[in-house]
Amino acid sequence: MAEPSEFALIRHYLSHLGANRDDVTLGVGDDAAVVTTSGQSLLMALDTLVDGVHFPSDLPAYWIGYRALAVNLSDIAAMGGEPLWALLSLTLPHVDEDWVAGFADGLGTLAARHGVAVIGGDVTRGPLSISLQITGRAPATPLRRDGARAGDRVWVSGRPGEAMAGLGVWQSPAHRDQPRWAGLRRTFVAPRPRVALGRALAGIATAAIDISDGLVADAGHIADSSGVAIDLASASLRPSARLRRWVGEAATVVPPAGGDDYELCFTAPASADTRVAAAARRSRTPVRCIGSVDVGTGVTFDGRSIADGAGGYRHFQD
Amino acid sequence: MAEPSEFALIRHYLSHLGANRDDVTLGVGDDAAVVTTSGQSLLMALDTLVDGVHFPSDLPAYWIGYRALAVNLSDIAAMGGEPLWALLSLTLPHVDEDWVAGFADGLGTLAARHGVAVIGGDVTRGPLSISLQITGRAPATPLRRDGARAGDRVWVSGRPGEAMAGLGVWQSPAHRDQPRWAGLRRTFVAPRPRVALGRALAGIATAAIDISDGLVADAGHIADSSGVAIDLASASLRPSARLRRWVGEAATVVPPAGGDDYELCFTAPASADTRVAAAARRSRTPVRCIGSVDVGTGVTFDGRSIADGAGGYRHFQD
Repeated sequence: MAEPSEFALIRHYLSHLGANRDDVTLGVGDDAAVVTTSGQSLLMALDTLVDGVHFPSDLPAYWIGYRALAVNLSDIAAMGGEPLWALLSLTLPHVDEDWVAGFADGLGTLAARHGVAVIGGDVTRGPLSISLQITGRAPATPLRRDGARAGDRVWVSGRPGEAMAGLGVWQSPAHRDQPRWAGLRRTFVAPRPRVALGRALAGIATAAIDISDGLVADAGHIADSSGVAIDLASASLRPSARLRRWVGEAATVVPPAGGDDYELCFTAPASADTRVAAAARRSRTPVRCIGSVDVGTGVTFDGRSIADGAGGYRHFQD
Repeated sequence: MAEPSEFALIRHYLSHLGANRDDVTLGVGDDAAVVTTSGQSLLMALDTLVDGVHFPSDLPAYWIGYRALAVNLSDIAAMGGEPLWALLSLTLPHVDEDWVAGFADGLGTLAARHGVAVIGGDVTRGPLSISLQITGRAPATPLRRDGARAGDRVWVSGRPGEAMAGLGVWQSPAHRDQPRWAGLRRTFVAPRPRVALGRALAGIATAAIDISDGLVADAGHIADSSGVAIDLASASLRPSARLRRWVGEAATVVPPAGGDDYELCFTAPASADTRVAAAARRSRTPVRCIGSVDVGTGVTFDGRSIADGAGGYRHFQD
């Protein structure tokens, strides 16, 4: 879930702080920073999840712990890296041992699955929030946002938009526990960071980003950073059958621009189609071609401009 | 400012999460973790400051930004390392451009002074808190908590306890702006992380910790981790003249166990006395010998045991 655009202004103040160092390859502005030490490049990211802002307050502690790491793994995935170490800072309003045990279980389970060691942790008193920092090994050519070139194809993993529908399922007492919505609910509750896909795409993709603000907004970040235009083909973004069923059932509109998907959007030259397909197969991750890169600026749908404000999460929280 | 002892229980759950990795030299439990990549050891720490818990709500934004980094620099100092890169996550209840500009100024000024690049930053909406992660270059032999040996001397930098008096000055409208208390106030508002001293002590000190919970509590952490006893000499901990004046003026008791000092407590063999003195001189940091290490457990004052609960911050918040 993203934040008001006024925060972009604030972010400006935080973009160039402190010393200029030669060992910083890539600073503020991508999914992770890139630094180099002893010839090894490392990826570093830090994310904070706030209760009621980044997850519903009634989400089980297990899935909050899981989510705190998933968000960060997704940042490493979007750079094509291998996650290594994590540091955790947990702020709690009161001591609830059961809650912490569940939180630690969810975080630890996902960490072990991805070979990540949690090397530091602290707990302080305050309104519930979780800050998690992750360090990863960078590939020879990290996947940045600024590498898309005219003529590239645009790809996406999984089914963007389903996580937002899954949040709808979670928030609806009438639907939450119905087995027929379990798959959709899971896309929100238990997102699968695309670490294997990201690693497989290093050296193949020209640019990548993880989808946290919504597909259109995040494709726009690639377009802006790369200085190109991106056109998305609406036919390739038709909702899945289960998503169409949910839209009918809940009478909500869930377009492909929904957020919180933790899928990857990436670009690659058309000449790399077979290598992209092989990377998807090797990482057991479904990918689809959803558009193309051209000279120009901004994101269009079938060649037509998108109404202002339709780009990301903000449009859909009303 | 430290936290209730029940949090020690919670911390237990967070101490062994995720994968076991050979490249983790030192995990949860010291001032910073130590990891190794391509033969280079790195120090990593993450701290969160919560409004009203870790700083007074009326502290100027400049000094909150400064403090967020100072806390982390102090962790690197306590390991004898050289700070390199920082990641920032700022959670704000509302957008106040002036506040953020001041915050960025304070953080950026201290970062530049220590050669630290802020390589990533994000801002989210929520109750005011700041998470800052720092990475440093480890010395050949990082200063850990567990290296103190019987026969070592115990040393401390600066004047532990003054920061707590400085907080008292800050919180007293009648005294805050009086020039005669400016020096004491500064010890709280603008703590000086002892990075130069820590680096100079690497290879000399046998153990080190930064004083955040209070001298007695933190000396206790060295004693516990090292499996030794520490005896402090009360004569060496006599309050400074300005601290005595403040105690008389404000009629408060400010003992050497106060927290928030960001000084270093360290141990070294008696045979290293001249090298310790040279390190202090080289880093322009005052140090004093305040006690000795012996076989046994716990911390004593002049050979006498300390009343339960007198060890740290908790005792003094009443």
